[in-house]
Amino acid sequence: MEEKLQRLKTLLGEMDDLARASAVLGWDQQTYMPPGGGEDRGNQLATLARIEHEMATSDGVARLLADLEHYAAGLDPESDEACLVRVTKHGFEKSTKVPGRWVSDFAQLTTLSQEAWVKARQNNDFAAFQPFLERVVEMRREYASFFAPYEHVYDPLLDDFERGMKTAEVKAIFDGLRPEQVALVKAIAAKPQVDSSFLKLKYDEQAQWNFGVEVISRFGYDWERGRQDKSAHPFTTSFGSGDVRITTRVQPDYIGTALFGTMHECGHALYELGFAPALRRTPLANGASMAVHESQSRMWENLVGRSLPFWKHFYSRLQSLFPAQLGNVSLETFYKGVNRVQPSLIRVEADEATYNLHIMLRFELELALIDGSLQVKDLPEAWNARMQEFFGLTPPDNARGVLQDVHWSAGYFGYFPTYALGNLVSVQLWDRIQRDLPGLQDDIEQGKFDGLLNWLRVHIHNVGSKFEPQVLVQKVTGSKIASPAYLRYLKGKYSQIYGL
Amino acid sequence: MEEKLQRLKTLLGEMDDLARASAVLGWDQQTYMPPGGGEDRGNQLATLARIEHEMATSDGVARLLADLEHYAAGLDPESDEACLVRVTKHGFEKSTKVPGRWVSDFAQLTTLSQEAWVKARQNNDFAAFQPFLERVVEMRREYASFFAPYEHVYDPLLDDFERGMKTAEVKAIFDGLRPEQVALVKAIAAKPQVDSSFLKLKYDEQAQWNFGVEVISRFGYDWERGRQDKSAHPFTTSFGSGDVRITTRVQPDYIGTALFGTMHECGHALYELGFAPALRRTPLANGASMAVHESQSRMWENLVGRSLPFWKHFYSRLQSLFPAQLGNVSLETFYKGVNRVQPSLIRVEADEATYNLHIMLRFELELALIDGSLQVKDLPEAWNARMQEFFGLTPPDNARGVLQDVHWSAGYFGYFPTYALGNLVSVQLWDRIQRDLPGLQDDIEQGKFDGLLNWLRVHIHNVGSKFEPQVLVQKVTGSKIASPAYLRYLKGKYSQIYGL
Repeated sequence: MEEKLQRLKTLLGEMDDLARASAVLGWDQQTYMPPGGGEDRGNQLATLARIEHEMATSDGVARLLADLEHYAAGLDPESDEACLVRVTKHGFEKSTKVPGRWVSDFAQLTTLSQEAWVKARQNNDFAAFQPFLERVVEMRREYASFFAPYEHVYDPLLDDFERGMKTAEVKAIFDGLRPEQVALVKAIAAKPQVDSSFLKLKYDEQAQWNFGVEVISRFGYDWERGRQDKSAHPFTTSFGSGDVRITTRVQPDYIGTALFGTMHECGHALYELGFAPALRRTPLANGASMAVHESQSRMWENLVGRSLPFWKHFYSRLQSLFPAQLGNVSLETFYKGVNRVQPSLIRVEADEATYNLHIMLRFELELALIDGSLQVKDLPEAWNARMQEFFGLTPPDNARGVLQDVHWSAGYFGYFPTYALGNLVSVQLWDRIQRDLPGLQDDIEQGKFDGLLNWLRVHIHNVGSKFEPQVLVQKVTGSKIASPAYLRYLKGKYSQIYGL
Repeated sequence: MEEKLQRLKTLLGEMDDLARASAVLGWDQQTYMPPGGGEDRGNQLATLARIEHEMATSDGVARLLADLEHYAAGLDPESDEACLVRVTKHGFEKSTKVPGRWVSDFAQLTTLSQEAWVKARQNNDFAAFQPFLERVVEMRREYASFFAPYEHVYDPLLDDFERGMKTAEVKAIFDGLRPEQVALVKAIAAKPQVDSSFLKLKYDEQAQWNFGVEVISRFGYDWERGRQDKSAHPFTTSFGSGDVRITTRVQPDYIGTALFGTMHECGHALYELGFAPALRRTPLANGASMAVHESQSRMWENLVGRSLPFWKHFYSRLQSLFPAQLGNVSLETFYKGVNRVQPSLIRVEADEATYNLHIMLRFELELALIDGSLQVKDLPEAWNARMQEFFGLTPPDNARGVLQDVHWSAGYFGYFPTYALGNLVSVQLWDRIQRDLPGLQDDIEQGKFDGLLNWLRVHIHNVGSKFEPQVLVQKVTGSKIASPAYLRYLKGKYSQIYGL
């Protein structure tokens, strides 16, 4: 059996090689590839994906898994080996239930659908996008059908991002979250607004870049095992345990994008750099889920990077880089400015207090699309109605409404809720960390992050994707994913900032 | 049969995708990869190579080729289809004659051998490298044996770089070339030396880079389908017809490296960018051979870039960028300086007149190693003896002698002669181009290169690797690869510069 396990690991290692090779090609595509490279790059990525899919669904893997399942049942269920067999089997079953024909049809559809979305957003023309989205929804419903029976038709979609989690769980969490978050935003809106105009001045791009590099070096980002480049949409990508890269976007007239974007991506990267060496080149060398991944990025971006202790340490340095812009802005004013709450139309520009509302809006709508209770043609109206209900705003056009995000055009249904779940998890972890590390706030005020990073390494990073997200969060925090901690955090923070 | 041809093309396209994906990974490794990425990158490249080899030697390809051979025999032998079947069959037969076990053993050996070479060169310790080189020579002799019977044991090695060419042909060419080139170098040495000290001053690196970009933009390098980055060893790499990249190295205290290196790599890149679209994603979208590839790089570097007409156009621009260094250097002095002839120890620093001698020295030695008439332990002595014979120089140590090149440690036997053959081909083509384009020198003097590039596109680039190098050179110039044109060129040029 040891030998069969070794053979499985060899196969998984080769699949991992192909996936990482694709990641390199994708990174290059978004950073350095000249325009002419697109067509051939598409062919290369398609071939790599096809071969990886063939390997992942091969009879060889099936036989090894069948042989190893009994063996794994006799092991400590938390051992690397037992987890590897379990996680591999889960992925294998998902892959083999979906016909190869569906996979290639869907890849083709979403390529066209994303192109249609880009144009539709440019032209503010939902009708042009509608037939593509209808087909995507139809195929996503078909995808769910491959996994029947299920409790909820959305479950198999959600499982792609949050292994083992059920739609009913997400609904219950959001039902508890939404009214409280709406009430909080209303309470804040009744108070005098804080100033953040100083963030939207001319900021030298190289100096912004350098400050970001300084900060994440202090966080513990290892430049021997990573690098940062520029791209239109910031992302983190891993080519293996020794090469995890981030990208950032620098805006010349707004410092917030690079400042918090760099910390956010660094949070993702620290996670990817922290998997235990024993998990290398296996499916366990991955984040536990999208929500757990997002908990890491949001922790470094928000709980660290938008906190007062953080700026007590770093603000004088930032002022020295930008004396003209910030010389007359006090620490308190700056801190409040980077935490300004303002209901707005665009998700990616949303603050901490309103962000989850954008997510819940999308979750409700995509759930309705998938369960058939909402037709695509009625989506813009439904979107705008909820914008009014949640934010008291109506988008002036669909480009700044229902057409703003790429996700649905790319076929990502089940992805949106993980952003909000990640926020919740970040604070659940944070509460536990503060209990374990009573000196944490002092450390941050001194620009020291090694205690925090070490805690995350031990409790979250090292185990990779050995456990389902709900299991991991329960193990570490004593509770499954839940909203009370996050709500307490938001209320505490904004009561102080806005004097509620 | 049409359908079988299409199936073959599909398979070849996928192999091409894998090869190009590996090229992207290799490019990244030499430009941007952080140090920690090396180990996983090695795994990724090995897996891609293994899968590509499996596909290239598969029964499916064997059956398709067997079925298509008869069909191809009925086609115009110069048609794309006939050439594709012929070239694919040649590669297939070479690949399948070599046991998979030999391939992996040799890959492992050359990895170790290159590491040993790096250290041996650093420590000037040939004895430490000797056992590795002995094993490499032994395995290369074994490699040749897989292709028995052959005219010469070196033939199968040469064929890897110059398809269809025989050792006897190379010997005959070099036998005619060497005495004349030795005599020319001696004649030059008897004349007063020209000044080139102005090339070795402080030159701003960004300005060097910018000038190179200006020049190759004028050559016709298409930045929509390529880019330039920095690397320790300059190279050209192709990720497909729309993405052919070059790298360059810029030295702060010597302008020659970036100046001529950029033009050299651009010559390679223009070739790769010029294959006919119909050959895309097939084995025909490659250079005809290493020598033909080198003829392109050397043409742009030397026949264009080291010519007087070129500098009549570009020199004032270069002077304006570097007034302190070149303001008082006349055009004629500069032209002579970049063509200075100086017997030297190091191949990669050699001028046009001595370069081929470095190659012929290596060719004679590697031939003797492969045919068994020279033992590895006697190599340093043999090297130094020939250095004395060809150049009148004796290396002060092996690091600047027999250990200077990576090729043998990497297992490249049969590669060196292609550098010299490329020089010969470049001038054979140049003679024909001058007959076809009587206004060429005037065009160059005006900084116009579209006529030249177009000629190369039509006669050399478009056909890719449809023809064996000797066939292609014969078709285009009326003669196989030969030395007289090159000798005439060298004598003419240096008679004028040195007043012979």
